Amino acid sequence: MVPIILDGRKTASKIVDELKSWTEELKERGVTPKLALVMVGDDKYSKRYVKMKARLCKKVGVKPLVHHLPAETTQLDLLKLIEELNKDPSVHGIMVQLPLPKGLDELATVEAISPKKDVDGLSPATLGKILMGEECFLPAGVEAIIELLRRYGIEPERKHWVITGLSNIVGKPLAALLANMDVTFTCCQADNPDLAKYTREADVLVVDVERKWAVTADMVKKDVVVVDNGNNYEGNKVYGDVDFEGVKDIASAITPVPGGVGPLLIAMLIRNTLKAAYMTLKRKS
Amino acid sequence: MVPIILDGRKTASKIVDELKSWTEELKERGVTPKLALVMVGDDKYSKRYVKMKARLCKKVGVKPLVHHLPAETTQLDLLKLIEELNKDPSVHGIMVQLPLPKGLDELATVEAISPKKDVDGLSPATLGKILMGEECFLPAGVEAIIELLRRYGIEPERKHWVITGLSNIVGKPLAALLANMDVTFTCCQADNPDLAKYTREADVLVVDVERKWAVTADMVKKDVVVVDNGNNYEGNKVYGDVDFEGVKDIASAITPVPGGVGPLLIAMLIRNTLKAAYMTLKRKS
Repeated sequence: MVPIILDGRKTASKIVDELKSWTEELKERGVTPKLALVMVGDDKYSKRYVKMKARLCKKVGVKPLVHHLPAETTQLDLLKLIEELNKDPSVHGIMVQLPLPKGLDELATVEAISPKKDVDGLSPATLGKILMGEECFLPAGVEAIIELLRRYGIEPERKHWVITGLSNIVGKPLAALLANMDVTFTCCQADNPDLAKYTREADVLVVDVERKWAVTADMVKKDVVVVDNGNNYEGNKVYGDVDFEGVKDIASAITPVPGGVGPLLIAMLIRNTLKAAYMTLKRKS
Repeated sequence: MVPIILDGRKTASKIVDELKSWTEELKERGVTPKLALVMVGDDKYSKRYVKMKARLCKKVGVKPLVHHLPAETTQLDLLKLIEELNKDPSVHGIMVQLPLPKGLDELATVEAISPKKDVDGLSPATLGKILMGEECFLPAGVEAIIELLRRYGIEPERKHWVITGLSNIVGKPLAALLANMDVTFTCCQADNPDLAKYTREADVLVVDVERKWAVTADMVKKDVVVVDNGNNYEGNKVYGDVDFEGVKDIASAITPVPGGVGPLLIAMLIRNTLKAAYMTLKRKS
């Protein structure tokens, strides 16, 4: 059977078109959506990500407000900036690019972001609300997985999900979301020595173990849906955590790497920003 | 094989003795630990719980500060009280007895409690921190389970935990805690039609499905550790979610109901209050 290839690039491009019409509608109603992108220091990857985020903002019609602070920025100054952005009614979303340079407190920083503007879904209050099943923004990595499945007609409900690798931005918030859905889910640490025992149980397998091809064909059951969050660089080439060629013949659906969830991440961040902008309209009316 | 009976009453009584020496030490250092107990309205069970909490506070040497507000209290007045308690340096812990009367917003109420005083571990920020693996107070229901196992020499690590029933006060925060430990865990909703399939996999089985004897001997594997959070009343008699008589011959350890985790809950709340009091000492020094 030929599996469904969960094509993140195609899906992202459709979503971007949808978001353009959202921004048009918002502008007709007098709102220019604005996303603050805060980065500290000169990490090469962070710079690249912020640039990509700003670029997609512009394409969609969202105004990016880039705050590029020097590496020697103090915690106090960073918190002061976030406080200003929290208060600024023209700013709808605030994203702080992680990691921060050493010496800055990431937890205190994300904690400072107002839940109403936490479009990256990183603060403890947001994570707690996800776990409680309360309304809030989902981190892009989680929203991207659910979105990709739904766009291909794969219902997340009534499945046994297995999550391998529990990062703060994907595995843990995904588990928190699933705790409020009609599903069963199993979580394994990335270094679990019996990984295969659990991956074989999965109807939906979400892999984020940071090891090239850690999940192989013998580790999955027939018709599994596989979401690969791997991002393993060898030179300029990037490899997933799943051996795509081997697993694709067994799976009913699978993300390629590159081109799976990755391309959706920024679109999800921007969609959250637009949702935040819509909410300000609701609060006004 | 005779299973270990995880005796919550005996364990609680030992812990209460320990807590007495903590409060003595705190008093020698000039701190009288104080726990604010806030209840609204006249729910029979809430009144009983608050009374039990105040009584154990006194026994241990913690000053209970009971705020019993009338059922017609407004959200604004309730939040104002919490704000005062947040600011009062003589108050170390704040506990709001749930459920609140209709018309009051439980989420907004627990959100208002300062994380430093959230000794009941109920606010979204606290839940988010548990999920992130950051230091914070654990809800009594979670702390009680871990404590009971450790007191009987049962290490929680390197086990497959199965949690059936995902409430905001036990199942979900327990899952959040386990996400940061060297364990694998599976979460099932209480109404999962294939419950037995998952309970049979458990090394440690935590049951909170609110149905008398929902878990029977044929649903567990040999040497499982069983924690029963059931609280099913029939007249004056209370029954667990686990058929204790049937399961005990298969389990290596099991909580009775009554007398399992229940008796530990208030002790854990008070221990958190004492921890909060110790933290104010640290902040001073």
